[in-house]
Amino acid sequence: MVPLPSAVVDEAMRTAVAVSESARGISTPNPPVGAVILDAEHRVVGTGATAAPGGPHAEVVALREAGAAAAGGTAVVTLEPCDHTGRTGPCTQALLAAGVARVVHALADPTPTAAGGAETLTRAGVVVESGRLADEVARGPLRFWLHRQRTGRPHVTLKLASTLDGRIAAPDGTSRWITGPAARAAVHAERARLDAIVVGTGTVLADDPALTARADDGTLAVRQPLRVVVGRRKLPAGLRVLDDTAPTRVVREHDPQAVLAALDDLNDVLVEGGATLAGAFLGADLVDRLVLYLAPTVLGAGRSAVESTSVGTLADARGFRRESVTALGDDLRLDFVPVAVPSHPAAAPSHPAARTQQEQTCSPE
Amino acid sequence: MVPLPSAVVDEAMRTAVAVSESARGISTPNPPVGAVILDAEHRVVGTGATAAPGGPHAEVVALREAGAAAAGGTAVVTLEPCDHTGRTGPCTQALLAAGVARVVHALADPTPTAAGGAETLTRAGVVVESGRLADEVARGPLRFWLHRQRTGRPHVTLKLASTLDGRIAAPDGTSRWITGPAARAAVHAERARLDAIVVGTGTVLADDPALTARADDGTLAVRQPLRVVVGRRKLPAGLRVLDDTAPTRVVREHDPQAVLAALDDLNDVLVEGGATLAGAFLGADLVDRLVLYLAPTVLGAGRSAVESTSVGTLADARGFRRESVTALGDDLRLDFVPVAVPSHPAAAPSHPAARTQQEQTCSPE
Repeated sequence: MVPLPSAVVDEAMRTAVAVSESARGISTPNPPVGAVILDAEHRVVGTGATAAPGGPHAEVVALREAGAAAAGGTAVVTLEPCDHTGRTGPCTQALLAAGVARVVHALADPTPTAAGGAETLTRAGVVVESGRLADEVARGPLRFWLHRQRTGRPHVTLKLASTLDGRIAAPDGTSRWITGPAARAAVHAERARLDAIVVGTGTVLADDPALTARADDGTLAVRQPLRVVVGRRKLPAGLRVLDDTAPTRVVREHDPQAVLAALDDLNDVLVEGGATLAGAFLGADLVDRLVLYLAPTVLGAGRSAVESTSVGTLADARGFRRESVTALGDDLRLDFVPVAVPSHPAAAPSHPAARTQQEQTCSPE
Repeated sequence: MVPLPSAVVDEAMRTAVAVSESARGISTPNPPVGAVILDAEHRVVGTGATAAPGGPHAEVVALREAGAAAAGGTAVVTLEPCDHTGRTGPCTQALLAAGVARVVHALADPTPTAAGGAETLTRAGVVVESGRLADEVARGPLRFWLHRQRTGRPHVTLKLASTLDGRIAAPDGTSRWITGPAARAAVHAERARLDAIVVGTGTVLADDPALTARADDGTLAVRQPLRVVVGRRKLPAGLRVLDDTAPTRVVREHDPQAVLAALDDLNDVLVEGGATLAGAFLGADLVDRLVLYLAPTVLGAGRSAVESTSVGTLADARGFRRESVTALGDDLRLDFVPVAVPSHPAAAPSHPAARTQQEQTCSPE
């Protein structure tokens, strides 16, 4: 084989990650995988992402685009190719049939229910490399699915949107809009890729939010996340969250553990508010990522973004590690992961899925 | 003359800005100026910053280092060279005596009390360029002096140091330490360059802070800013802010305008707290820069960074524009300038000092 430069593989893997973003939410409960096919001269001849359940996997989409050019080439995939026949045939067979000479994947499949794709490919004479850009890929679209495989519960992102002094509303309750149009557009784009948005009954009763993913002009996104309302307060008919624009699940629980137990079919949920629900999830150490949209304003009065009744002294504070800082117009988006309760071994070098090839399986469709 | 590449001048101007940082606080009430001398082949042969009042100006320090190499060379200076005899002779004469062929300065001197250095130099056959990197230089160490020349009052920086949810203390009052060692070291280094630190009596009574500039091991910095305590509450003897480690001024006023009137001999003051004083300065639109040290923690209860009694609705929020984002260990430092009451025309392209050479003077010593 012509030597394959490491930089070419890294670039292909990053392309695979970018392509897989389109599968978020769509592929659930399957993982949103991305694949890139390089021909024998290492040119990109196909890309693909996991389709909706029952549709083709990422590798098959990319191989279809590549056609005969895949022969003697390389498949670069974010997750180990499956070796499992579900509603579609195993990706390993599709790769072998196309004559692919080499497979590079970032993460070994952590699901413990089937034999390994890497092993099957290796036995058939394919050169297989596992672990390429594993940390980077584990922080991408696969993050949520990996989290659920590991913990048995959905990945929880807590979203806060506040002024520089941590306020989410003025004393008279006005709160629209604290963040600017670029941040709000980003929030709506993100909503369309989520499995669910979770809010407390207090927020629903106070603000009557629609909790849908919408464009600037109000047009609904094609895909809507599940809307989840948690708490025991009575919800009157006519609330927007109860309309038929998107599915809604009402969970009559206060406790974050019980709330997540009622959402155990989901990978990726976003807790959007209010301050009391945010405090409850933080207090229960059930926040896997904190996303803070910070507006360049100061109020000096009004409700704070997080309100907890169980905090007394500074040692009760929850600690985070900064993951990224992004400018969104005049606002900033700050991403954090918890430090006290490490929730992201998938993103750490010691993640077994990124290192071993012992338990590779195809996730069931 | 050998053509002088623009990139060389820009680099020399940025060096002059960096050098002038050492004069902050030291040169007051004179401006902290920086100068770089290039020889006829455009090599750096001397650098200098303004000394304490009565000592040499930046140009003279740099010319002394350059010696004979200055002849036929270029002086790159952050502020127009002075043409005024105070405790030292005019810089224009020192530049002419050294045989400098060209002078490039960023900002014309805005003080209206003396004739212009640029004009004197031009008449003597020196090539003079004004306005080079003017915006960038105006945001540097000269910022505070320029502000006072323009407004007649000190430049006010409001410093907040909070958790991600805007808290500066837990419900039991514990607040040490919310930010980490890198942010605290940066705060102390900054204190040593300030004219004054301003706090309210409430903070002094609650926390008994020393308000001195100290190294990690507690060693006092050589230069200490003035400590200013504002408010009408009685201060008992024995408070650390009243000890003899640094000068202290007690201002028995509540109103930010009255406080600044009592500080009209200063260029650069920092309002450090507490939340009530911060709210008063913001409410009076007397904050020229907001510096937020943001720790990666969430408390969920306790005192907020800004508490104002005059805010009712979202339209009362004060708006800012982001100037910079800096990582300090685990914390972030976010710098903002106000948008509602533009306080920094010196940093805008329309600043007259950066464009005209009509009123160049040397600031009095």
